[in-house]
Amino acid sequence: MTNSVLVEVLRGAVVESAHRGAIAVFEADGKPVWEIGDTARPVFPRSAVKAIQALPLVESGAADAYGFGNRELALACASHSGEPAHVELAWAMLAKAGLDETALECGAHWPSSHAATVALARAGKAPNALHNNCSGKHAGFLCTCVHAGIAHRGYVKSGHASQEMVRDAMQAVTGAAHDFDHCGTDGCSIPTYAVPLRSFALGFARMATGVGFEPVRAKAAKRLLSACMAEPFLVAGTGRADVALMEAAPGRIFVKGGAEGVYCAALPELGLGIALKCDDGAGRAAEVMVAACIARLLHADKALTAKLKEQALPPIESRIGAKVGALRPTAALS
Amino acid sequence: MTNSVLVEVLRGAVVESAHRGAIAVFEADGKPVWEIGDTARPVFPRSAVKAIQALPLVESGAADAYGFGNRELALACASHSGEPAHVELAWAMLAKAGLDETALECGAHWPSSHAATVALARAGKAPNALHNNCSGKHAGFLCTCVHAGIAHRGYVKSGHASQEMVRDAMQAVTGAAHDFDHCGTDGCSIPTYAVPLRSFALGFARMATGVGFEPVRAKAAKRLLSACMAEPFLVAGTGRADVALMEAAPGRIFVKGGAEGVYCAALPELGLGIALKCDDGAGRAAEVMVAACIARLLHADKALTAKLKEQALPPIESRIGAKVGALRPTAALS
Repeated sequence: MTNSVLVEVLRGAVVESAHRGAIAVFEADGKPVWEIGDTARPVFPRSAVKAIQALPLVESGAADAYGFGNRELALACASHSGEPAHVELAWAMLAKAGLDETALECGAHWPSSHAATVALARAGKAPNALHNNCSGKHAGFLCTCVHAGIAHRGYVKSGHASQEMVRDAMQAVTGAAHDFDHCGTDGCSIPTYAVPLRSFALGFARMATGVGFEPVRAKAAKRLLSACMAEPFLVAGTGRADVALMEAAPGRIFVKGGAEGVYCAALPELGLGIALKCDDGAGRAAEVMVAACIARLLHADKALTAKLKEQALPPIESRIGAKVGALRPTAALS
Repeated sequence: MTNSVLVEVLRGAVVESAHRGAIAVFEADGKPVWEIGDTARPVFPRSAVKAIQALPLVESGAADAYGFGNRELALACASHSGEPAHVELAWAMLAKAGLDETALECGAHWPSSHAATVALARAGKAPNALHNNCSGKHAGFLCTCVHAGIAHRGYVKSGHASQEMVRDAMQAVTGAAHDFDHCGTDGCSIPTYAVPLRSFALGFARMATGVGFEPVRAKAAKRLLSACMAEPFLVAGTGRADVALMEAAPGRIFVKGGAEGVYCAALPELGLGIALKCDDGAGRAAEVMVAACIARLLHADKALTAKLKEQALPPIESRIGAKVGALRPTAALS
């Protein structure tokens, strides 16, 4: 099936580009609330499921043993922009387990924050693995290993105890088999598994409500989502859509973007989980889709809906800062 | 009509994302040679038509008056990466007309070359309008104004003599009306007009052959395309797809990418013009489309075709440089 256009890119009054996609909204008992497009097709969730991947860090007792609060847990679920606060906190998490950045196997890249990149270059420095947007997640993996007495070397590889814990959590939470036929390697070198989009929506409804979980998992899931909602900057960075969405209604909206146009989200007050993917992998369109989707689901709150609808209309500017266009959700979404 | 998927993005063995698009290949007499998808829909060509926009620079005599050779003409047609050679040459072009970067109205942005950005920051500098990827085109506009005795202030605006010359050239070459209902503002502040994709394919077949042009225009068009093919680095920059494609067969392939997934190209030996757009605006997919399209059209040259087919399969790498996926053209394209 061909998914519908959910986001249009306007320049002047002309539609310049268009983005198709699929969206699934589920309750924790498995009831679909709203589905657009093909939600059965397997998709890689990429970084959108970092909160699920962080469950072993909490459930193993490692987070408590190292005294991790909201800030550290938010960073463990983050795709951060490599700003100084992110880098320093990732370093501090590793230090608690007696490690440093040389233990990280995620690779190094320049910060996604342009300002952070310029500042690093101006200081005559180059990025290391702490600047990798996944360094908080990897610090979480490493802390879990050290706490559990597992040799951490090779922790990114399929078959290592660390990734087996992550896979077990992913399968249990989403209810979908994570098999090797649908396994790829993520940008940070860990395995990522393609499963139906709707499974991620169901998984995040469970994460938000704890329905169907043992008490330890229910508590860990709520603690991780609460941490992200309490510290949105640490989950992303300056000017990022995830921060704007979570700050629009503190404690009421959880969102997490992933590469190639994926979002997972949860609305605890409605007991709903959301998962979406832009077919072509465009992050700009996925950001519009998630804002428009949440605006519709939280329509009862008029002030909040107005704010979210504005976030679903990001402007396109020329190099002198003049507004020359905008993205907008199509009727299918609003 | 819904365009077909022309490019798939693989992670492991799974298709992670997909890009739709349309392609038009025309002869200069208006005969369609190959069309995929909706080639009648108006699209903004963006920077893909800079060679047409540079015609007034040559036809007015300004290029000769200022002693511009292949290097300057290539830069006038460029979306450059803001590397030192680009910036210095844009400055030198302006100096020939007694101007400097303060005359540029394109706005400033950090170089698209990451290495150039880091070098600039390390030197404690910030970008100016010379680093704008369009600074060569704008230097061409300004030189044309000064040579013709036209006051250059506001040269980016619709209605200014500079943009009227550009619009006249665009209409004559493409044969399509450029009307205000289909006008938008480009990133560098000049007007851009959405016209059918096939009109750009026809236009570039004419640019390559001179068919249907007065002698002065035919000569100017060939001079501009030849300049780009002789100096591909100046048209783009280090590691860019346009450079790799033009260097694959020197003097035989002209290509120019534009924002939002557009390419225009010409194959002088076959007398063909090519125009394509990725529906969702993704440059990564447009690069695969143009390489695969040219590989098919030049299939008689086996060695060249093999090289182009490899360029149509760019790898996707993890942050440690491991190959974890690739883009590939679909059967519709190959």
